[in-house]
Amino acid sequence: MMKLVRDPIHGFIEIDEDKIEIVSNPLFQRLRFISQTGLASHVYPGMTHTRFEHSLGVMKASSEIVKRVGENSGLDFVSKGFVNLVSSVGMLHDIGHLPFSHTFELGLEMANKVYGLRLEDNGRKTHVHIGLRVIEEEFAKNLEKISKETNISDPVKFTKDALLDVPKSEEERLCSYIISSSIDADRSDYLLRDSYYAGVVYGLFDLERLKRILVYRDGKLQVLEKGVPIAEEFLLGRTHMYQNVYFHSVVGMFNAILALALAKMFKDGELSLPNKSEELLDMTDFRILTEVGKKGGYAHDAILFRKGFKRAKDLELNGECARMFYQVRKEAIDIMRDSDGMVVFHEFSDAPDQDPLNLFVYTKEGPKEMKTVSKVAGALGRIDKVVLAFHETANSSMVDRARSLLEWLKSTC
Amino acid sequence: MMKLVRDPIHGFIEIDEDKIEIVSNPLFQRLRFISQTGLASHVYPGMTHTRFEHSLGVMKASSEIVKRVGENSGLDFVSKGFVNLVSSVGMLHDIGHLPFSHTFELGLEMANKVYGLRLEDNGRKTHVHIGLRVIEEEFAKNLEKISKETNISDPVKFTKDALLDVPKSEEERLCSYIISSSIDADRSDYLLRDSYYAGVVYGLFDLERLKRILVYRDGKLQVLEKGVPIAEEFLLGRTHMYQNVYFHSVVGMFNAILALALAKMFKDGELSLPNKSEELLDMTDFRILTEVGKKGGYAHDAILFRKGFKRAKDLELNGECARMFYQVRKEAIDIMRDSDGMVVFHEFSDAPDQDPLNLFVYTKEGPKEMKTVSKVAGALGRIDKVVLAFHETANSSMVDRARSLLEWLKSTC
Amino acid sequence: MMKLVRDPIHGFIEIDEDKIEIVSNPLFQRLRFISQTGLASHVYPGMTHTRFEHSLGVMKASSEIVKRVGENSGLDFVSKGFVNLVSSVGMLHDIGHLPFSHTFELGLEMANKVYGLRLEDNGRKTHVHIGLRVIEEEFAKNLEKISKETNISDPVKFTKDALLDVPKSEEERLCSYIISSSIDADRSDYLLRDSYYAGVVYGLFDLERLKRILVYRDGKLQVLEKGVPIAEEFLLGRTHMYQNVYFHSVVGMFNAILALALAKMFKDGELSLPNKSEELLDMTDFRILTEVGKKGGYAHDAILFRKGFKRAKDLELNGECARMFYQVRKEAIDIMRDSDGMVVFHEFSDAPDQDPLNLFVYTKEGPKEMKTVSKVAGALGRIDKVVLAFHETANSSMVDRARSLLEWLKSTC
Amino acid sequence: MMKLVRDPIHGFIEIDEDKIEIVSNPLFQRLRFISQTGLASHVYPGMTHTRFEHSLGVMKASSEIVKRVGENSGLDFVSKGFVNLVSSVGMLHDIGHLPFSHTFELGLEMANKVYGLRLEDNGRKTHVHIGLRVIEEEFAKNLEKISKETNISDPVKFTKDALLDVPKSEEERLCSYIISSSIDADRSDYLLRDSYYAGVVYGLFDLERLKRILVYRDGKLQVLEKGVPIAEEFLLGRTHMYQNVYFHSVVGMFNAILALALAKMFKDGELSLPNKSEELLDMTDFRILTEVGKKGGYAHDAILFRKGFKRAKDLELNGECARMFYQVRKEAIDIMRDSDGMVVFHEFSDAPDQDPLNLFVYTKEGPKEMKTVSKVAGALGRIDKVVLAFHETANSSMVDRARSLLEWLKSTC
Repeated sequence: MMKLVRDPIHGFIEIDEDKIEIVSNPLFQRLRFISQTGLASHVYPGMTHTRFEHSLGVMKASSEIVKRVGENSGLDFVSKGFVNLVSSVGMLHDIGHLPFSHTFELGLEMANKVYGLRLEDNGRKTHVHIGLRVIEEEFAKNLEKISKETNISDPVKFTKDALLDVPKSEEERLCSYIISSSIDADRSDYLLRDSYYAGVVYGLFDLERLKRILVYRDGKLQVLEKGVPIAEEFLLGRTHMYQNVYFHSVVGMFNAILALALAKMFKDGELSLPNKSEELLDMTDFRILTEVGKKGGYAHDAILFRKGFKRAKDLELNGECARMFYQVRKEAIDIMRDSDGMVVFHEFSDAPDQDPLNLFVYTKEGPKEMKTVSKVAGALGRIDKVVLAFHETANSSMVDRARSLLEWLKSTC
Repeated sequence: MMKLVRDPIHGFIEIDEDKIEIVSNPLFQRLRFISQTGLASHVYPGMTHTRFEHSLGVMKASSEIVKRVGENSGLDFVSKGFVNLVSSVGMLHDIGHLPFSHTFELGLEMANKVYGLRLEDNGRKTHVHIGLRVIEEEFAKNLEKISKETNISDPVKFTKDALLDVPKSEEERLCSYIISSSIDADRSDYLLRDSYYAGVVYGLFDLERLKRILVYRDGKLQVLEKGVPIAEEFLLGRTHMYQNVYFHSVVGMFNAILALALAKMFKDGELSLPNKSEELLDMTDFRILTEVGKKGGYAHDAILFRKGFKRAKDLELNGECARMFYQVRKEAIDIMRDSDGMVVFHEFSDAPDQDPLNLFVYTKEGPKEMKTVSKVAGALGRIDKVVLAFHETANSSMVDRARSLLEWLKSTC
Repeated sequence: MMKLVRDPIHGFIEIDEDKIEIVSNPLFQRLRFISQTGLASHVYPGMTHTRFEHSLGVMKASSEIVKRVGENSGLDFVSKGFVNLVSSVGMLHDIGHLPFSHTFELGLEMANKVYGLRLEDNGRKTHVHIGLRVIEEEFAKNLEKISKETNISDPVKFTKDALLDVPKSEEERLCSYIISSSIDADRSDYLLRDSYYAGVVYGLFDLERLKRILVYRDGKLQVLEKGVPIAEEFLLGRTHMYQNVYFHSVVGMFNAILALALAKMFKDGELSLPNKSEELLDMTDFRILTEVGKKGGYAHDAILFRKGFKRAKDLELNGECARMFYQVRKEAIDIMRDSDGMVVFHEFSDAPDQDPLNLFVYTKEGPKEMKTVSKVAGALGRIDKVVLAFHETANSSMVDRARSLLEWLKSTC
Repeated sequence: MMKLVRDPIHGFIEIDEDKIEIVSNPLFQRLRFISQTGLASHVYPGMTHTRFEHSLGVMKASSEIVKRVGENSGLDFVSKGFVNLVSSVGMLHDIGHLPFSHTFELGLEMANKVYGLRLEDNGRKTHVHIGLRVIEEEFAKNLEKISKETNISDPVKFTKDALLDVPKSEEERLCSYIISSSIDADRSDYLLRDSYYAGVVYGLFDLERLKRILVYRDGKLQVLEKGVPIAEEFLLGRTHMYQNVYFHSVVGMFNAILALALAKMFKDGELSLPNKSEELLDMTDFRILTEVGKKGGYAHDAILFRKGFKRAKDLELNGECARMFYQVRKEAIDIMRDSDGMVVFHEFSDAPDQDPLNLFVYTKEGPKEMKTVSKVAGALGRIDKVVLAFHETANSSMVDRARSLLEWLKSTC
């Protein structure tokens, strides 16, 4: 029996029996307790949504997009079974996310850099690696059942290749494009969803038309020429969500504070990376919040009560200046450690044009790179930003050390 | 300096300096960790919103409504200062909510009934009583500052009288109507907000027009005759939200399971009611989820992973039948206790027409009760429902006992 | 080749080749020049939409509803071809509408009553009768092509029986329900569309869920019990649209003025009913506006420039009082004629519960009438209203005569 | 007494008594019969909206923007009276639009070019020139009344200077920016409104935030640095509306056919430019449609019934190629004339960066041009396009002549 779930973004999401089994798995239910956008709700209070809804949304969006692309492109292999498989991959693509999503990944990085630990850290792909392990251990059976009506013999390998962006076949390549490329179901869902929950229009784009202007030809996902404006809207929407929401200075400040707190928990042995799927079950926002509560102190006040920290607005770095930050990064890390986290640096960095699977435009003369066809796409450059924040009781010599570091950098860039 | 907060329901919410002080209080920030609608997100996954956003929304809505009603009715006492005071009361009206909001209140009731504890329990008004204590202890200074430009000399008393629906003056009476009556700022916000987060249209109504069709005359909040349809829409919207969301059988089942789990924590001394404001700081959803996690067992699986319980659909009681439930309530409570919570009964009951401050229609012949003027309002009766659920490993004799109880009731009603 | 049309209500509407032939017929294109809601735009300026968009919307809505109802009810005869046929009937159901839609029908009535003409007048069903003639003459071929894949041998008869609500077979009966009953595709579209263009929320309801809670059993369209709130929302939405929009006093006043102007054109031989499909092509809003412009005078000013008329607000009749109007109707008609249309009476009357095909609720004990199951549905009674308006230069004795007529009526009711 | 008008874009629009006088003027009411976007509804059927709603919307948007900019920038002269004056100018800025808006202006151009007439033609500013005449003749009194509470002594001159973009004072300059510049109230309204009626998201942007990030300094309207993304969204939104809606090839084809039909009416003496305000009253869409109806023929079929013409899709010119069209324009005009309008060329051209009042970004180093600060703004170049269409019965030698013209051009560009 099919289940219907009401979703503010996609209306009703239909979940068939095979997928109900996936949804019912505690590892999937755990996503209810992983906030989609870290502490962005400290600035946009509506953003309380979680990876759970997002995962259902990606399932729906990927199912619709891959079906359409198959039709648009006359691809025989895009059967009903294949659509089911791709949307299952979409559904599972975030199964490995750790508490507060990317903020946890930043915490791992801090643990290694600030405290010299040697934790496994795959950067922003950490959740993918953990997820693939979980999929292999816990969802292989589900994927095998679902892929029966396709010619994919090893759906776990299929999922791995697709999610790691190293496709080995046409099928894997298309799946990779649909779930994990410049214009994909993942981004489609989060742009719409994050905009909705934040209450902004920045990330809105025309999903109904998007599905209709994508084709898969010559091993590439391509935008029809007439669809270039739709794609531009999508790409600019993403950039604007970064500028206004994900990379909001105050959002970044709180995420950095939380990341440092996580790093300290690792150092103090209060937190460790999950080795088995079962251990992952325990990795939830609420557990972290409880730990933060127990430790008390200024991080507790900042994370739970939004209290105590202030940004040095005058020293915010942008663009080229921010890219120069690597010159002082080591010293900044020292300051964070020496100040016991009461002085915090946060780097933002996004380079949308470095996706491994680039976007192409379908023209009579063959595929052309999107950013050569569209000036707007070409104009969407990197976003780099550095934010500095202090706790109000931070040691003044530490504060001075941090300030002069950035002042010096500002004077040279 | 004023702050702007983006809100999906009201656009931008402006918070002036006096109110920033309130918002910055950890007791107010705590509301970020109190889900607005208990475990409704187990059915409507989008409903992850909290009492924090809602409280800001009520502030905004009450500010706009009271200002308009003052203008519509030519009330001199509705000055800028008074509007500020009323909206501060609006902002604070939920400050005493406990984890998972009304579900916690149900937990208190279960603790007393099922386990014979003697906890303070004011039913669905518990959060108001706790809130008033907190307001007195922690926010008196804020309210005094805000009420300086009014002729309210004791704003804490003002707040108490208004929120307990026992107004002693015109000013208190109007405030009571605006924050806590049939058509008020609280309901205005939650109908729109809960609809938005659920992704449904049930609770939508015309807030812009509502403000324009309310007058305060002869000590009563009254709807202009031409505004009756707007009010009907509001009232039916509320009823539909109850029928489809708040009183959804599965939502009720999970809330009852959580309430029983809370009751058990009280019994086992793992949870106690906050005596001081400071203790309230520790009352958050995440703390409860962590406790639930620690206890493990079937409640843990149900609450965290949506696992293990099934409704007895064939035995759902409605209307008159449900109202007869009081005849077997004692036995039902025994079963819940004896089965260690693996058999759960849940009663839903709402009687919208029993608000202490009734709604009136302003007519040439004087105020008339809404439900006599509007057949639709008159038709909106009580909603009563009883749901029975079992854990899949529940003792079969317990299950039988529960089933036969309801079967007998069904045969007599 | 299929065509895609962007629609604000339904997103994209897909039109297949068979239906493109229908849309391309000038008789269908003519609907672009028939305003959906008469002169409602004189009060709600956004309501400039036409029967053209509405007809496409009904096509889409009827296609989706009938398909779902077929699935929900296990009806074998609801094949792809049958869905196509029903949605074609939906698409054509308004093909006979005359300029300004129902206002023209009121004009016909006025021509007969005020000026004693003997024009064919089927009241609010006039457009259906004209439409059926047109369908027979011009669209028979299209319907035959479309119905080839069904077992409907005479699709024109099928259409007639369905649209006149005199179904002779199961197929016709279901079609009749889908296009023309209490909860149907026609109303579904106009409630959503008129709300959208007016900028109000009154008529919004949950179309996605509506489709899922309708079944066709025992020759009746029935609402599942759990769907009763959805149906209530729909029915109340309709009532509210009548109260606030369609039966808005000022909307009524302008429509009555236009209707009288049309009646005069009939009398003066400037207008006649179309005898043949070809003559229908000439029946457009713009033609009428041009004629109104040519005649000049106060009607011209009122219709084109919203000028010169005022309502007697104190004499508006409602409910029982309005139903008594029949006692003075003859005299009112005389006044309208004698004042040369400078004094205008307008009666509004709607009785939603007199649909020939009543709505039922599907219960274990068999179908029950909606209004016996739902108190809300039962509370939605007739709406009756009478509005009186004068031109500012109307002869004062005429005005007095009109006023005293209503004053007398008011004193007796 | 104030009036409230419901508007789908801005909610309620409040119209005070002074402005009710303006709205009640038949010259303003006439705007109800001027479609906002020519024949765009032949492609986007929802786009039936008119200059009337748009004018009210610009009134509202200009009122809000100018008030905010005054506050943001500490401008003393932005008093309540000044806001009223600016919003009155906003309200009247389109009062001179002729039937089908810009399509009529194209008709004038065609009359001069194709038929050698010598009609006054100010291109896309024609409606401004006519409007200013009307304002001087008919609305001077209104503006004088409204400007009493300002220090503007000659509000008609003020309006002229502002709308012709030749401001002589700070006040005029600000008004010019608010009503008629790159980011202004006019565009704000039409981007949101046209998107709404078309049912697309292309033109959506964040009006609430836009108001908050504009300042007027050093004689320039400037975007705060943090507001650059909002401005980019606006500018890209406008570009996308051009690409997808205003410059849609089929929209252009129908507008060109109508423009040629208008040109012919001028030639045949059936149409003339209004010399006096009174004559303007007669210039409405419905009059033109009636004239088109009377003339019959293929233009009639195309304009009323969307019949008979087809684009030469293979010969559509874009970008550089389209800009080369000037080389063959003379010949193209000959073909249009010689084929009696059965062969139609249509040029689209928009260069958003040539606004007389350029947009600046407010930076510490002083104002910088938007397109130098924002790569996205810099990337938004000209749009140029040429469309060719034939009537299905067009003389084949004419068709060949037209085709070879464009084929030659394509081969050279």
